[in-house]
Amino acid sequence: MKTPDFKARAQELESAVVAWRRHFHSFPELSFDEVKTSDSIAAALSEMGCENVAVGTRGRPTGVIADIVGGLPGRRVALRADIDALPVAEGTGLPFSSQRPGVMHACGHDGHMAMLLGTARMLCEAKARLRGSVRLIFQPSEESAEFVQGARAVVEDGRALDGMDAIFGVHLWSPLPSGVLGWRAGPMMACSDSWTVKLHGQGGHGASPHQTHDPTVAAAQLICALQTFVSREVNPLKCAVLSTGVMKAGGAFNVIPSEVELTGTARSFEPQISRDCEAFIRRMAENIGAAFRCTAELDYRRNLPPTVNDPAMARLGAESGRGIFGADMVREVPPTMGGEDFSFYLEKIPGAFFFIGCGDAAKGTDWPHHHCKFTIDESQLCKGAAFEAACAWAFLNQ
Amino acid sequence: MKTPDFKARAQELESAVVAWRRHFHSFPELSFDEVKTSDSIAAALSEMGCENVAVGTRGRPTGVIADIVGGLPGRRVALRADIDALPVAEGTGLPFSSQRPGVMHACGHDGHMAMLLGTARMLCEAKARLRGSVRLIFQPSEESAEFVQGARAVVEDGRALDGMDAIFGVHLWSPLPSGVLGWRAGPMMACSDSWTVKLHGQGGHGASPHQTHDPTVAAAQLICALQTFVSREVNPLKCAVLSTGVMKAGGAFNVIPSEVELTGTARSFEPQISRDCEAFIRRMAENIGAAFRCTAELDYRRNLPPTVNDPAMARLGAESGRGIFGADMVREVPPTMGGEDFSFYLEKIPGAFFFIGCGDAAKGTDWPHHHCKFTIDESQLCKGAAFEAACAWAFLNQ
Amino acid sequence: MKTPDFKARAQELESAVVAWRRHFHSFPELSFDEVKTSDSIAAALSEMGCENVAVGTRGRPTGVIADIVGGLPGRRVALRADIDALPVAEGTGLPFSSQRPGVMHACGHDGHMAMLLGTARMLCEAKARLRGSVRLIFQPSEESAEFVQGARAVVEDGRALDGMDAIFGVHLWSPLPSGVLGWRAGPMMACSDSWTVKLHGQGGHGASPHQTHDPTVAAAQLICALQTFVSREVNPLKCAVLSTGVMKAGGAFNVIPSEVELTGTARSFEPQISRDCEAFIRRMAENIGAAFRCTAELDYRRNLPPTVNDPAMARLGAESGRGIFGADMVREVPPTMGGEDFSFYLEKIPGAFFFIGCGDAAKGTDWPHHHCKFTIDESQLCKGAAFEAACAWAFLNQ
Amino acid sequence: MKTPDFKARAQELESAVVAWRRHFHSFPELSFDEVKTSDSIAAALSEMGCENVAVGTRGRPTGVIADIVGGLPGRRVALRADIDALPVAEGTGLPFSSQRPGVMHACGHDGHMAMLLGTARMLCEAKARLRGSVRLIFQPSEESAEFVQGARAVVEDGRALDGMDAIFGVHLWSPLPSGVLGWRAGPMMACSDSWTVKLHGQGGHGASPHQTHDPTVAAAQLICALQTFVSREVNPLKCAVLSTGVMKAGGAFNVIPSEVELTGTARSFEPQISRDCEAFIRRMAENIGAAFRCTAELDYRRNLPPTVNDPAMARLGAESGRGIFGADMVREVPPTMGGEDFSFYLEKIPGAFFFIGCGDAAKGTDWPHHHCKFTIDESQLCKGAAFEAACAWAFLNQ
Repeated sequence: MKTPDFKARAQELESAVVAWRRHFHSFPELSFDEVKTSDSIAAALSEMGCENVAVGTRGRPTGVIADIVGGLPGRRVALRADIDALPVAEGTGLPFSSQRPGVMHACGHDGHMAMLLGTARMLCEAKARLRGSVRLIFQPSEESAEFVQGARAVVEDGRALDGMDAIFGVHLWSPLPSGVLGWRAGPMMACSDSWTVKLHGQGGHGASPHQTHDPTVAAAQLICALQTFVSREVNPLKCAVLSTGVMKAGGAFNVIPSEVELTGTARSFEPQISRDCEAFIRRMAENIGAAFRCTAELDYRRNLPPTVNDPAMARLGAESGRGIFGADMVREVPPTMGGEDFSFYLEKIPGAFFFIGCGDAAKGTDWPHHHCKFTIDESQLCKGAAFEAACAWAFLNQ
Repeated sequence: MKTPDFKARAQELESAVVAWRRHFHSFPELSFDEVKTSDSIAAALSEMGCENVAVGTRGRPTGVIADIVGGLPGRRVALRADIDALPVAEGTGLPFSSQRPGVMHACGHDGHMAMLLGTARMLCEAKARLRGSVRLIFQPSEESAEFVQGARAVVEDGRALDGMDAIFGVHLWSPLPSGVLGWRAGPMMACSDSWTVKLHGQGGHGASPHQTHDPTVAAAQLICALQTFVSREVNPLKCAVLSTGVMKAGGAFNVIPSEVELTGTARSFEPQISRDCEAFIRRMAENIGAAFRCTAELDYRRNLPPTVNDPAMARLGAESGRGIFGADMVREVPPTMGGEDFSFYLEKIPGAFFFIGCGDAAKGTDWPHHHCKFTIDESQLCKGAAFEAACAWAFLNQ
Repeated sequence: MKTPDFKARAQELESAVVAWRRHFHSFPELSFDEVKTSDSIAAALSEMGCENVAVGTRGRPTGVIADIVGGLPGRRVALRADIDALPVAEGTGLPFSSQRPGVMHACGHDGHMAMLLGTARMLCEAKARLRGSVRLIFQPSEESAEFVQGARAVVEDGRALDGMDAIFGVHLWSPLPSGVLGWRAGPMMACSDSWTVKLHGQGGHGASPHQTHDPTVAAAQLICALQTFVSREVNPLKCAVLSTGVMKAGGAFNVIPSEVELTGTARSFEPQISRDCEAFIRRMAENIGAAFRCTAELDYRRNLPPTVNDPAMARLGAESGRGIFGADMVREVPPTMGGEDFSFYLEKIPGAFFFIGCGDAAKGTDWPHHHCKFTIDESQLCKGAAFEAACAWAFLNQ
Repeated sequence: MKTPDFKARAQELESAVVAWRRHFHSFPELSFDEVKTSDSIAAALSEMGCENVAVGTRGRPTGVIADIVGGLPGRRVALRADIDALPVAEGTGLPFSSQRPGVMHACGHDGHMAMLLGTARMLCEAKARLRGSVRLIFQPSEESAEFVQGARAVVEDGRALDGMDAIFGVHLWSPLPSGVLGWRAGPMMACSDSWTVKLHGQGGHGASPHQTHDPTVAAAQLICALQTFVSREVNPLKCAVLSTGVMKAGGAFNVIPSEVELTGTARSFEPQISRDCEAFIRRMAENIGAAFRCTAELDYRRNLPPTVNDPAMARLGAESGRGIFGADMVREVPPTMGGEDFSFYLEKIPGAFFFIGCGDAAKGTDWPHHHCKFTIDESQLCKGAAFEAACAWAFLNQ
């Protein structure tokens, strides 16, 4: 089955895609609050001819799932876009800036939605020749993923991934130059774990340390000791980070506190390193605590697993991308220590996640994600739409 | 001039002294809010025949100063009692418990006032034979001394110590058994310094430590390093304490903070050690900060100087005490690391501070000071009144 | 020009190659003491028809360089084998075990020489059809490379690399299974830096710490601080190691020493990280030293640069290897943190280094390198010889 | 019984005492090698009329014990002098300098012997009026007391202290001005404990920390943690020192060692603090070791107990000293953190140890003890001899 010329068709649809993006940009909604966003998406999908258009995710009112059922029998592939905005006050000065004070699409999800709507339209148009079917997942709450993972809700919902053979997703990526498609086999984004250690000692007057079990010194030695996870215990050829974010103890200058609380994050690309990290922190906190006559309590949470691309799916995407971005512009990229809840899908079914470069200093689209001046290079949207369509088509015609 | 038998006379006055104490106990007032307390004291002093009775301290409306002018010419000596209560909800169940919810004489200042009123009465009675004069200082705000030192206000007031040749003061002391008078030449109570170090680094994402200057590790190493003031730098034959009370940094598990704030206290008996301590913390904070590419800011405050008894005055008191407490019950005691703003007087003129033991387990008077069940052994009040009178008499007749 | 069938020819030469290997194994010689080894090699090369056979390296009597001059004009490529043994007492029990007590070819250099002699013979046989020329470098003193780098001597000798367009080298590698050729573009082996910090304080009696500037505590905090190079300062996606190997201080239990000496190593794959590491250690040692009133002295040495394969040369080798090892057995391998002085050649000219797997548990050839029971899987020698010939041929015919 | 005028008689004997001192100074002998010294002492004592003169200490050939048996019945008191010299090359340039190269009386024991011989002579002269008896103990090996305590040997010998009711001893003391007698009730000199911690980890290559259990970081954190004994666990009103003297680990820059050995000393004036210190080091070493996957081994030795003067004996000595040194020159002194094996006697029987000031800058007698230029102020020797006689006489006549 000859592949439709998604690249050319997307070019024709560019103004529609850009219009969608600007609309979403003007009306951003926070995680699990994407009510109007979801309604707009559902309406558009229904109008295009998608089937089974359903709003809501596992009891929550946002997120949209829909199917494009091909005219030919075949496998099933999912495409995912995330739809939530951030609690950022927009500072771009764009004419289509956010109309909701303090809320902004500062990460590119407006573009993700627009691209996937473009993809949906092209696939609907080619429905007769489509083998199998394509499921569109417009996922809520990616930004809050370290606490309330939209992707986990989608996965647990059951219906969304049910019967899917593969999944693809993309992220517009300002650190990568416009025009480049970044791909990678294996780990692409890190896990995001969080941890809290409470060291309980025995407080007392600051003038009488001998009547206390001072947890501040224990905490200090613990923070020093935590450095050795990466410096001594992780294979130096592997990547890992263990950082302390919060230190809390005491309230009065002359009182030795009875407790210190430390909180931080851990990152790596392998579940085993994450497990090792938990065991490491427990060992350190308990033993160093005991050295200073304190007891330790550890709360370790795995918020996001690493985003690990299936090598075959990653290569399929890279191959599909060559026709759209140009062979020279499809580049293997190093992983990043950031996290992404697309990882939950990849724990269930094969798939791959890609970076669509949209950094262009001349256009002012190279601000870091989440910055109040962040904006995307709209010229990449139709390429992204074509790319997602091409991935799905290629997978279904393998 | 034969010394009046203060011991016997105080015994006769016991019920009046106890009544005063219970009155003050029922109506406690917080630091620099001792308005009714001051009025009661002033009225009593006037009635006894004191002169120059003045309420107020350096613009504030509380505290009382009065004179007992002797019939014979001579030197001038001051006696001091502190008068404020604590923000403690009383838990003694005594019939004369505090009638002000959440406020309590939980440190014994009610007794201090009652004793000094008893002393005043006896000295007024013996006025004709009194050489020189006795100034009575009922000082406000001792409890808040680490922030708003009542004694400093009295000293700066000028009138209070003007022309005084010596000063004596006492503290009812539950760690010491009832019946004992504790004395000491030289340092008796420690200075109380407070310090705050801010370490400014460069914050960033917890997954990207290499893009930050992480102040949490600098703070951890600093806390470890602070231990060496006492362990390495102070002469081991001298006393010093350096404690951390407060650690504050960050707010999110996945963000390396840009600043850590540490706050604590330092104690010693010598101004030179206090100065060394400030220089030590500055050296440590700046250099360890620099090691971790952070800058350090130190705010060091000397809230209370050490309470250093003049040896001759201390021995004069001990000698005076032998006739009242019995020779065996007058004991040289070790210093304590706690602070007391009587120290401000002793920076200006010679004098001495004494502990009047009032701990008696059988009577339930051995609770620690500031505890909600703290109460004093009233049987010691008339001894204390006699002791203060005897000190003044002895000094003036030296 | 059709490539000769080196694989088949090497198979025919297998017994000769194995015989060479066993000869070298029986008569191992230590670094820069490879006199008889060099003589044997030179004799063999001369006999094969090599030209310019020269023994000696920059004034030292060992190492051999020779040329195979092709019948056709072209470029020039170098092949390198290292020739020294280790101060290890052999424990293999092999019939051809070392006849020199305490000296053993426990790293595979015996095999390296035998393979390169096999290569030389095949290239001499094909000389008429050879474009350009092949220089054979039998390099002394690789094992002592962290102190006396044979490769640096060869490079500084000048004659050896003069006019060379590329260089290839191999290492028999027991961690890799027999039959596998391991290749990698870019960094393959780490740099090896060494460092020594001396912290000078002020010694004194252990009972009088206040009269000293105790360098032991400074050293302790420094060791803790050194952990943060890898944990906080290096990009977590990059590889680096900073280890302490030696701690030296004091001589008597009751004397605080005046100096502590710490020595260790640092590893990475990038010169910038090595430079950062030196600056980091200097910053830490000087500032933490100053915190504890000590001065710091750093001696930082770059013993071995990282071994960085030219990507084109690495791919050329991988391609050449497919015909000899089989396409499935040519594998991209991760880098190792170990060092290798082949790095000095790669600083000067393009080239690549490869691992020839020789680990086979069934044959007992999976002992770690430098172990007294280490031995190689001789079945891989003729493959290695063919591989080196093929690399040279491919390069010269590019 | 009227006390003999020891002060006047000692003055008469001054030249003899000085001659003795100079003789001993010229012929110094090291610990437990004081053979000729012992012979000289024994001969002198026999000649004076001492009884039971015995050379040797518990199987060793040095040390002298003798008795002066009074003409009247009574109690028994011991006087002790130490007799060994130091491995110091004399640098005083005195005409009676050491004739034994590298050996010197650099601590004043020459004077101690001379004074006690003077005392012995005076007591022998007064024997008829002497109540009870005086035992003279010329003790070997005080200088090596942290390893081979002469005093312990004397105590274990049994004969020496058998039946003794009290003991007195003195030390010439250059930090104290000439003419002063320093006394103190209670702890006078510290205990001297030594400790060694071995941390056993798992060594390995410096490039592969993840395959090791690196004991160097554990040791670093342990040294930091040890600071908290004094800074956090000992009552700040008490004295204690915990110092590290020796750090030993590893041998090669690129090898993480399998073991670190730390050695140091601990000092305090109370057996309980010494016991706490042992438990503290054990707790710290075991728990911090466990944090870093190392095991810890502690060897803790109490070499010297604290020297604790019996208050009554100390006061008896101070009283006796007033007649000899003058009331103003008898001063209560602070304790010192140094150790002295006189402590072993005081563990068995009441007694006291005194400092005889001999520091006089004008005379060049203020060098620190053990310095190659140390020498004593000979004008104090006859006072010291008189003082020891007076102490014994006073005790026996109590």
